[in-house]
Amino acid sequence: MKLSEIASRLGAELVGDGDVEITGVAGIEHARPDQITFIANPKYAPLAKSTKAAAILVEPDFPALEGTATLRIKNCYRAFAQTISLFYTAPKYTPGIHATAVIDASAAIGDRAHVGAYVVIGADVVVGDDAVILPHTVIYQGARLGHRFFAHAHAVVREFCRLGDDVTLQNGAIIGADGFGYARDGSAWVKIVQSGAAVLADRVEVQANACVDRASIGETSIGAGSKIDNLVQVGHGSTVGENTLLCAQVGLAGSTEVGDRVILAGQVGVAGHCKVGDGAVATAQSGIPSDVAPGAVVSGYPAMDNRQWLRSVAAFTRLPEMLRDLRTLRRTTNPNE
Amino acid sequence: MKLSEIASRLGAELVGDGDVEITGVAGIEHARPDQITFIANPKYAPLAKSTKAAAILVEPDFPALEGTATLRIKNCYRAFAQTISLFYTAPKYTPGIHATAVIDASAAIGDRAHVGAYVVIGADVVVGDDAVILPHTVIYQGARLGHRFFAHAHAVVREFCRLGDDVTLQNGAIIGADGFGYARDGSAWVKIVQSGAAVLADRVEVQANACVDRASIGETSIGAGSKIDNLVQVGHGSTVGENTLLCAQVGLAGSTEVGDRVILAGQVGVAGHCKVGDGAVATAQSGIPSDVAPGAVVSGYPAMDNRQWLRSVAAFTRLPEMLRDLRTLRRTTNPNE
Amino acid sequence: MKLSEIASRLGAELVGDGDVEITGVAGIEHARPDQITFIANPKYAPLAKSTKAAAILVEPDFPALEGTATLRIKNCYRAFAQTISLFYTAPKYTPGIHATAVIDASAAIGDRAHVGAYVVIGADVVVGDDAVILPHTVIYQGARLGHRFFAHAHAVVREFCRLGDDVTLQNGAIIGADGFGYARDGSAWVKIVQSGAAVLADRVEVQANACVDRASIGETSIGAGSKIDNLVQVGHGSTVGENTLLCAQVGLAGSTEVGDRVILAGQVGVAGHCKVGDGAVATAQSGIPSDVAPGAVVSGYPAMDNRQWLRSVAAFTRLPEMLRDLRTLRRTTNPNE
Repeated sequence: MKLSEIASRLGAELVGDGDVEITGVAGIEHARPDQITFIANPKYAPLAKSTKAAAILVEPDFPALEGTATLRIKNCYRAFAQTISLFYTAPKYTPGIHATAVIDASAAIGDRAHVGAYVVIGADVVVGDDAVILPHTVIYQGARLGHRFFAHAHAVVREFCRLGDDVTLQNGAIIGADGFGYARDGSAWVKIVQSGAAVLADRVEVQANACVDRASIGETSIGAGSKIDNLVQVGHGSTVGENTLLCAQVGLAGSTEVGDRVILAGQVGVAGHCKVGDGAVATAQSGIPSDVAPGAVVSGYPAMDNRQWLRSVAAFTRLPEMLRDLRTLRRTTNPNE
Repeated sequence: MKLSEIASRLGAELVGDGDVEITGVAGIEHARPDQITFIANPKYAPLAKSTKAAAILVEPDFPALEGTATLRIKNCYRAFAQTISLFYTAPKYTPGIHATAVIDASAAIGDRAHVGAYVVIGADVVVGDDAVILPHTVIYQGARLGHRFFAHAHAVVREFCRLGDDVTLQNGAIIGADGFGYARDGSAWVKIVQSGAAVLADRVEVQANACVDRASIGETSIGAGSKIDNLVQVGHGSTVGENTLLCAQVGLAGSTEVGDRVILAGQVGVAGHCKVGDGAVATAQSGIPSDVAPGAVVSGYPAMDNRQWLRSVAAFTRLPEMLRDLRTLRRTTNPNE
Repeated sequence: MKLSEIASRLGAELVGDGDVEITGVAGIEHARPDQITFIANPKYAPLAKSTKAAAILVEPDFPALEGTATLRIKNCYRAFAQTISLFYTAPKYTPGIHATAVIDASAAIGDRAHVGAYVVIGADVVVGDDAVILPHTVIYQGARLGHRFFAHAHAVVREFCRLGDDVTLQNGAIIGADGFGYARDGSAWVKIVQSGAAVLADRVEVQANACVDRASIGETSIGAGSKIDNLVQVGHGSTVGENTLLCAQVGLAGSTEVGDRVILAGQVGVAGHCKVGDGAVATAQSGIPSDVAPGAVVSGYPAMDNRQWLRSVAAFTRLPEMLRDLRTLRRTTNPNE
């Protein structure tokens, strides 16, 4: 595809030779002379001079470049994401229900659904239009799924769960399995029935082998546009707001409340009943044992203000010499000690 | 259901109007005027005055309340758990074997089993009475499962594993996959055959996408009544005692020994060959590199006594000022430095 | 099997009575008088005197033992691994394609394949010779799998992924699910198509419920002989070298570069775009936010040199008394403060 055509499809300003033939996309350090790349983060700007790419997607105010063409557009990272789609065709799943799908007679499947081999759909399930349900997906009884539901092989939606429109489940994602709820009876644990559904609003994506548990009472709720990465645990009765990211292996204990536009980086843990305010960010591996204010950036365990944590961990490496100096000082000031 | 009927079904003492109609259960902050709630933890007692609930389940010695009915009963949390069951009917699975189940002729399935669509059961498998085996469960050859075995869709039990009575597997739980055992051969790794089964005693529950590996030699063993949460890793050859809780994303390395009535909170890790004594508790994200005494409460990494850890992390936030003070002191006491 | 026969099969030097009948293998503390055990780590040498085992596999220079036979051989741990195989027969899967397998007409399956019940294989898939594909495995369109591919029940290989020879997937392993890639659009997140395959070289093993994501651009790559344990997350676009071990619950964020012969112990996390040099080791739960030098041994979060970390965590437990001493000193040297 000619660079000029890419520019026109993206609505980007082209500076340089539009006739060059582009065959694909790549990161700035790996790009070949027939590929297009991008610079979204100013700290990578110096690489613009050394890249072999034919062209670079940049923000409109990016400095002029010699020798390499630029496509200038606001939110160039998003434009780059679009560019990938110009060169890659994901598998298409045409409407049709595989002969081996076991669908209860009481289930209602919307128009133009693709239902793959060995899919099992239980009683009273409702699925919206244009769903793609790949092999081995299991939908338990009473679940309600919106339009354009997309389930990869081995996804599971448990009984009575409700999913909005445009929800995507990657392989092995489990929505609505029993929460970890037991009551003590002497030294034994008695299971508490998990009566509440998991509810996913529109445009939620849950990635591979992640688990969003159902609730013992009430419901577990994920807000519109939130994205949940691989191997994440969302405990029973938790609430996650809108457009929040839970990165890989994050764990939310039961009844956690996470706000809108929060980012919990990889392996972060949040204790039960904690509230994480809107727009807060927790850096990787943070452990959150108590409420986090809206907009806060926290790190460490127990999680604290990120800048304070950075100062403390810098001092942490000096702890042995601090201990030694302190002993010396004590001897100096109190020679009889 | 009238409040008086709930009281009578639970065997609780009713204080207040038993004629009020209860339609469901809820947490104390979310309860509506037609719902019943509970206070098991005294720190929530003040909420008894502000809740909108029609009635509260409390311990027998809970102070008298004005305006809100109470049901008084020992272990009111357990009673609350029972109350949930009065208002929620979980799906029922009637006996019968789905036409698509592939069951080896040599397998012995007990009476009244429910075997769902696309279940695969291998040679020489034995399953007790009253089992519920939901779609896509795979039981490998030679596995032995007790009475009332309950497997949710996509659970797996590997070859020769043995499960007691009343074992429940949530979706995607994997019992007896190969342990992570390799011997060095130069810079390469040679796989060690994992010859030992995973053995789960009575009343063990393993939740979604958790993995209990088989052993290279001997066996991996989970004691009666223990509960294993989502995404937990139990390494090969580990031993877990009775009535122990492994919360979400806990990881036990190989040959770990965890005692009875232990609680490992979310994301705790235990190193190989460590022993965690009976009744010990590790708070969330603790890392346990060495043995933990019975009854100990530990935190942090490396895990230490919880109270000591709390004091140390409190001081940790003051490390930068400690470093600064120390420098000042050194200059004061040794001006020539 | 007589001990002398084991010695001869292993090519080990027998010291002691070769006529004793051995019925199995066990760890040194659990071995019975009819079992064989091993001592690979010199710190367990004292147990040679107390073990009940009939014989011990040891390195050639192990001190002479009274009363217990020894089999002397270099890399005795590897020899022990071989010994396990003498006493355990893993299930065999004979060639044949189950009647319920759904295999696209355009797929090419090599000779002598075992394809189990309810396996689904998509269009244009190529599988090498001697593959074993157990029930419920799903191979998406365009995937290419080498000789002796072994997939346990519920494994998934996504579209266009490429696996070398002798690759093993344990149950629920997901190769090539979508990476966690979104571009901001105001407060919303727009999905970035994940166009690049996950590529596993020869002899890679991926264990239960682990996830190796596909890449947005380029590919995600795992080098020959590397082993990936249960519940590990390999983020999109990451590169892992040869003969590297990623232990259980390790998480690699996107575009991580991990070298050859690296060992990341359980629950380690590596931030995006970090490089971990060849031969580096990170102890359990380490968090790696920046590059790690080849051969380094790192611990803690943020990860630092292991010896420095050991000194710092030793001092950490003394922080409260350090804080108190510092206050005392300040009062002593500056009484007016």
